[in-house]
Amino acid sequence: MLEMTLCLNPADSRPLYQQLYENLACQIKSGQLKAGDRLPGKRSLAAQLAVAVNTVDTAYQMLVAEGYLEAREKSGFFVLEYTDMLPVQPPLPEISVSKEPVSVPVRFDLSTGSVDTALFPFRTWGRIQKELLYARPELLSHGHRQGDEELRQALASYLRAYRGVTCSPEQIVVGAGVEYLLGLLAQLLRRNNAVAVVENPGYDRPRTILENNGIPCRCVDIDAGGLTVSGLRASGANLCYVTPSHHFPTGATMPAGRRAQLLHWAAEGEGRYILEDDYDAEFRFDIRPIPSLQGMAGPAGPVVYLCTFSKSLAPSIRIACMVLPVSLLDRYRAAFGSYSNTVSRFEQQTLYRFLQEGFFTRHLARMRSAYKNRMELLVRSLEEQFPNITLKGRHTGLHLLLTLLDGPGEAQMEQTALDAGVSLRGLSRYYMERARLCPPNTVVLGYASLQDADIPELTAALYSAWK
Amino acid sequence: MLEMTLCLNPADSRPLYQQLYENLACQIKSGQLKAGDRLPGKRSLAAQLAVAVNTVDTAYQMLVAEGYLEAREKSGFFVLEYTDMLPVQPPLPEISVSKEPVSVPVRFDLSTGSVDTALFPFRTWGRIQKELLYARPELLSHGHRQGDEELRQALASYLRAYRGVTCSPEQIVVGAGVEYLLGLLAQLLRRNNAVAVVENPGYDRPRTILENNGIPCRCVDIDAGGLTVSGLRASGANLCYVTPSHHFPTGATMPAGRRAQLLHWAAEGEGRYILEDDYDAEFRFDIRPIPSLQGMAGPAGPVVYLCTFSKSLAPSIRIACMVLPVSLLDRYRAAFGSYSNTVSRFEQQTLYRFLQEGFFTRHLARMRSAYKNRMELLVRSLEEQFPNITLKGRHTGLHLLLTLLDGPGEAQMEQTALDAGVSLRGLSRYYMERARLCPPNTVVLGYASLQDADIPELTAALYSAWK
Repeated sequence: MLEMTLCLNPADSRPLYQQLYENLACQIKSGQLKAGDRLPGKRSLAAQLAVAVNTVDTAYQMLVAEGYLEAREKSGFFVLEYTDMLPVQPPLPEISVSKEPVSVPVRFDLSTGSVDTALFPFRTWGRIQKELLYARPELLSHGHRQGDEELRQALASYLRAYRGVTCSPEQIVVGAGVEYLLGLLAQLLRRNNAVAVVENPGYDRPRTILENNGIPCRCVDIDAGGLTVSGLRASGANLCYVTPSHHFPTGATMPAGRRAQLLHWAAEGEGRYILEDDYDAEFRFDIRPIPSLQGMAGPAGPVVYLCTFSKSLAPSIRIACMVLPVSLLDRYRAAFGSYSNTVSRFEQQTLYRFLQEGFFTRHLARMRSAYKNRMELLVRSLEEQFPNITLKGRHTGLHLLLTLLDGPGEAQMEQTALDAGVSLRGLSRYYMERARLCPPNTVVLGYASLQDADIPELTAALYSAWK
Repeated sequence: MLEMTLCLNPADSRPLYQQLYENLACQIKSGQLKAGDRLPGKRSLAAQLAVAVNTVDTAYQMLVAEGYLEAREKSGFFVLEYTDMLPVQPPLPEISVSKEPVSVPVRFDLSTGSVDTALFPFRTWGRIQKELLYARPELLSHGHRQGDEELRQALASYLRAYRGVTCSPEQIVVGAGVEYLLGLLAQLLRRNNAVAVVENPGYDRPRTILENNGIPCRCVDIDAGGLTVSGLRASGANLCYVTPSHHFPTGATMPAGRRAQLLHWAAEGEGRYILEDDYDAEFRFDIRPIPSLQGMAGPAGPVVYLCTFSKSLAPSIRIACMVLPVSLLDRYRAAFGSYSNTVSRFEQQTLYRFLQEGFFTRHLARMRSAYKNRMELLVRSLEEQFPNITLKGRHTGLHLLLTLLDGPGEAQMEQTALDAGVSLRGLSRYYMERARLCPPNTVVLGYASLQDADIPELTAALYSAWK
């Protein structure tokens, strides 16, 4: 029997069993109690410490659970082997928090990632959400791994009607953002010799995602019709990420002839795929949106179609989907068939009912009209203020390209705008390579989150900055 | 001027401009209209077809937008080059829907992935969610990429208090499920010579995810204390996925001494990391949960801590988090700093308030008591019915291991149970290798979604199946 030096303090805020536990664990770790040592019986220790037997029992059970002690039937509690001290820890470095840069007070944010939150259908969305929470508790359980079946059916119908996508619900995968889905695709399409092409200028995230997943990327320059097929061919790539409906950020629409060429390219080599990102095609203001490349290719064609609800609903509601070609379905299921879906089922079902009951179509029409009106107000205001600008991108999407003839250079335009409280980005920032090809004095104006009433003030601020 | 053969049908359900558009697009694609051909003037064609000028104009604009025509100022509309026919498509294969197997009617589902949805805090969750939707429209916009700051702060406090995790909110990444977060980790830790160890038997998903991300895995056998450090050393791996608090599915708790050895192993080699999955440690019924390995290692230690709210809230609410060691923070941000967070901000903020306002602690206590009661009812009922069983795993988690002494074999037990309407899995199914090491006649009983009142009937069904 060991002599125990133990001191419990009833005034301590920690419960007695906790104090006893810590005391004993400390003695084991420090080697005062050694492997094989037998601890005092519970009753005897309780008497010695003038505490309840239960207190000792709890502390012993905790030590057993954590592997400090072993309970041997009818003979008591014994200390287990404890490896010497923990490895010496490196001193805790200052956490490099890479603090977000302190931003100058910005009156007008013309970045391209935002939307007008006032247009969100709060009432309908909230009502459906609430109904589902109370009426369908089974939605708390796991759903179909590719996304709830009703939602995939509604998406297939919607995409067919509005985007010319031809697919069955089985080809659809719902996920928490295009970035997530693109990551899965990259894992699926990664092979020893996979090389992808991305658009230059373009959206940088796809390149980051593909490269993070081990697929090297080549940047191919675009022209007025978007990605050039000659550049694609010269790259030697077998994957091609493209925004044919509305190139980001220049707004170019890929002509039908080039789309066909792109499909030719894909058909000419085994395992070639086109990743079509249709990120904002809902917002075409002149005529109906251009049908998707996926629709031209058909469900067995070599196109993976990606679309998001970030712009049509809200960036923070993470729902996106992809349409897999039939040829990839089995491979997808073999690799990811066991993955849980990443979107809350309540949000999936809310979106399903929102689509199914016709709210989405009405919501889109309302947004389209509000954004078109905003774009026209902005264009008029800018054209009145500046005699010397050209504006591109009026037909689609939620941003314009503004070129200031004889301007002071893009960097200067950005900086002076920021000094006047306007945050915007120069076009050259979207060039991943060969930024020298960038047209001079051109900036990107995302107008989605702008308030109509603020437009005159914004224009005046830009004028005073750039005059 | 071309002679146009066009036929519009006012009785057709398609609008006239759509018919005209399709007619012209078809002629261009088929080569009847050739590159350079000039189309009739709008007025003249409108007169010829007896339709409004606007109808022709719309069709022409659609063709321009899609790249079939080019509008040349003051001279009219010209056909653009169109590559010959689309590549011949392979015949559409039957979509191999890999139909979910038609399941036998199951009265009792004893799988381990479900929870008791009746315990979900519908009222509080719904109330907070609704308040946020109306009061905080700014939550529609993008939030912090690692997760909303308030939530990360609340998680850091919770994890410190309940799991002994020591970290700052900057080290936390919130994501749509542990699977997603593990995928990011794999991309971060993948190097030419990365090799990971997973537990055998164990949860198979981590291996799938690591391998999908290009990290080969070795299966190391466990013993009564969980993963063996000797096995880990022999494997030559530099990454180690482990469930030390409650090994899945055997329920083993790794003793303190072995935890220290594991940290020693990590400290001995450059770039070694332990991935600690603390998937259900909230449900420890005997005493307080075992503190995490991360807590032993400290914020600068080599442990990535992963936890999920799938069990403590619901599987379909996709919120999980990981705590990165300080040494990985900069690398994480360099690789994924531009990725959008994958969890809806409304759900993030709902969880934040649920934690902050004390609801989560109360909810956990309520669940723990309900599950403990259920487990005890089940144990009592089984022990009364079967004289010849051993039951393991009473202290933690939401499943038991049942061994039927002199049973008919695991496969037979599974099948006869299923025939009696009870879905359960044999322990050997969790062996990724060396299933011969599996104790015989042992099945895993997940009791979370079982109803207390059904327990006698379940036990009787099992008895009739196995007697």
